[in-house]
Amino acid sequence: MSADDALFEVPGPREAERAGRGVHPSRGGDVERVAAWFTDHPDLEERFSAVFRQSLDEVMDGQRTGRYDVNVLEKTEKTYLGTKVEIVCRAAFGLARGEKMDYRVSGVDVDAKFSLDGKWMIPREATGHLCLLMAANDRDSVFTVGLVRIREEILTQGGNQDHKRNISAAGRGAITWLFRQGKLRKNLLLNLDDVTRNALENVSAGQNRVDQLFRQVHGRIIDRNAVVTAAKQLDAPKRVRDARIRLAPEGVIILGHQNESPRIAGALKLPVPEKGTWAAARIVPAPGVTDRPQVSIGDESYVVAEPGEPRHPAPSIRY
Amino acid sequence: MSADDALFEVPGPREAERAGRGVHPSRGGDVERVAAWFTDHPDLEERFSAVFRQSLDEVMDGQRTGRYDVNVLEKTEKTYLGTKVEIVCRAAFGLARGEKMDYRVSGVDVDAKFSLDGKWMIPREATGHLCLLMAANDRDSVFTVGLVRIREEILTQGGNQDHKRNISAAGRGAITWLFRQGKLRKNLLLNLDDVTRNALENVSAGQNRVDQLFRQVHGRIIDRNAVVTAAKQLDAPKRVRDARIRLAPEGVIILGHQNESPRIAGALKLPVPEKGTWAAARIVPAPGVTDRPQVSIGDESYVVAEPGEPRHPAPSIRY
Repeated sequence: MSADDALFEVPGPREAERAGRGVHPSRGGDVERVAAWFTDHPDLEERFSAVFRQSLDEVMDGQRTGRYDVNVLEKTEKTYLGTKVEIVCRAAFGLARGEKMDYRVSGVDVDAKFSLDGKWMIPREATGHLCLLMAANDRDSVFTVGLVRIREEILTQGGNQDHKRNISAAGRGAITWLFRQGKLRKNLLLNLDDVTRNALENVSAGQNRVDQLFRQVHGRIIDRNAVVTAAKQLDAPKRVRDARIRLAPEGVIILGHQNESPRIAGALKLPVPEKGTWAAARIVPAPGVTDRPQVSIGDESYVVAEPGEPRHPAPSIRY
Repeated sequence: MSADDALFEVPGPREAERAGRGVHPSRGGDVERVAAWFTDHPDLEERFSAVFRQSLDEVMDGQRTGRYDVNVLEKTEKTYLGTKVEIVCRAAFGLARGEKMDYRVSGVDVDAKFSLDGKWMIPREATGHLCLLMAANDRDSVFTVGLVRIREEILTQGGNQDHKRNISAAGRGAITWLFRQGKLRKNLLLNLDDVTRNALENVSAGQNRVDQLFRQVHGRIIDRNAVVTAAKQLDAPKRVRDARIRLAPEGVIILGHQNESPRIAGALKLPVPEKGTWAAARIVPAPGVTDRPQVSIGDESYVVAEPGEPRHPAPSIRY
């Protein structure tokens, strides 16, 4: 929690007040208690990142649809995304069901509310209850998580046809933020530059597009979801194995997480892939003296190729 | 197509008529052509079965929620199920997008419509177009697939708030059925008897419930989805390996698809599991002369235990 949250949630006195009330904790104390339950997780940012990444990827269903941009989802899919986040978040934190709301956290009912644009729609029945407000922006690779008790005063007037209302600009000041700019794991395909994206979209989905992905995107971690979305089929490892064979004549290597891969990635100053991810590069034999990082493969030294350097077939690697 | 469809789709004369019209085929001909495209798949029933099984299982998301009954889904999830079926069906048959409708099949625009109860809601914009009508009943393990051209005359009057209308009782006569009672792959957990279900629900989700599943359900194929739903976690094979160790003292064996499993399943007249499925049984040493099927494991013969026969530890099996 950042410093200015103290304006709205002063822990000391309220905690004391709550203690005095026994089983009827003060309402302010509830927010602190639930916030503390979450912030007690040392890997909290990674967990929320995984919740949003997983939810977005599952609903986009790239392996079947080739989609990687949440903006192209249909309305029913966007609506469902909120339910998916609720389910994935529940599983990620092992949360029980609340008495009236989605979750029970530290003995407090908490409702899950997800919104792509941070304009949470609050239903009438949430009034008086705590809401876990969640938003994810896939293009900027950031997410937001906050806690607030829903009161009339923090909501906009009016409401939509379902009698749901937004949190007003003034009301947002009442939110206790767990993350204002949490780091969302990048959506590789969404974040490609236009030239690379066009190069991908110029070949049809399948092995050819997977080849193109590893031919074009070098020195970056490429995850399983990017591969199955380019392939529009399951079994990313198989697609990667085939791409290795097909790109070897061009000098492109695709490093994984085991055998010779970590050593080669480390020596060439490439990102070192974890399980289920890969990193590609085009390599050429080291040209005598060079200031580029080198790696020995077999009997020869290699460097990452510079643009324009002539092709040289990749050496045999134990991937 | 069954015989009585001929009342509505007489191939001969209409085909002739279509041929005469060149690029403007008769409307009746379109239904036949699209139906023929589907029925040309020799594995059509299995494909549709897999489409519905996969869609239902993904939206119930048993691995995270423990749910196996589509009736407990939330409204947004039931709505989304239609979209999921559209996506999975498109992928299963490799269908292109239509000009105005979901699919393009044999040059004809076809809209996908799924309904759990076979009461398809037809939107205005589908009028004049072909609809692929799909329904699945998970409790009865059956599905329905039909094709119809939407015309005013086959719809009910009125309509819901979204101006969607049902196909009228009389209008259903116009449907060309591909499957009236297609065989949907069974939802094992949904189809358990009450005693067994209670035995499962009396232990908490996780390894204990997986153990209980294999302790209680014998002689039937148990698929990956049943295991991850009981476990409420991924990695079914690991849960099964652990269950084998934990149930061996009780004489329970859990056969898979490889090594000694197929031979033992065959000899004991148990169903022989395919990859990603298992079959359990409690076995005891064969009591001399017996009319039960026997199998040799190591140096001894075994039979499937009858209820009440004393426990005997399972022999070591190369699973």
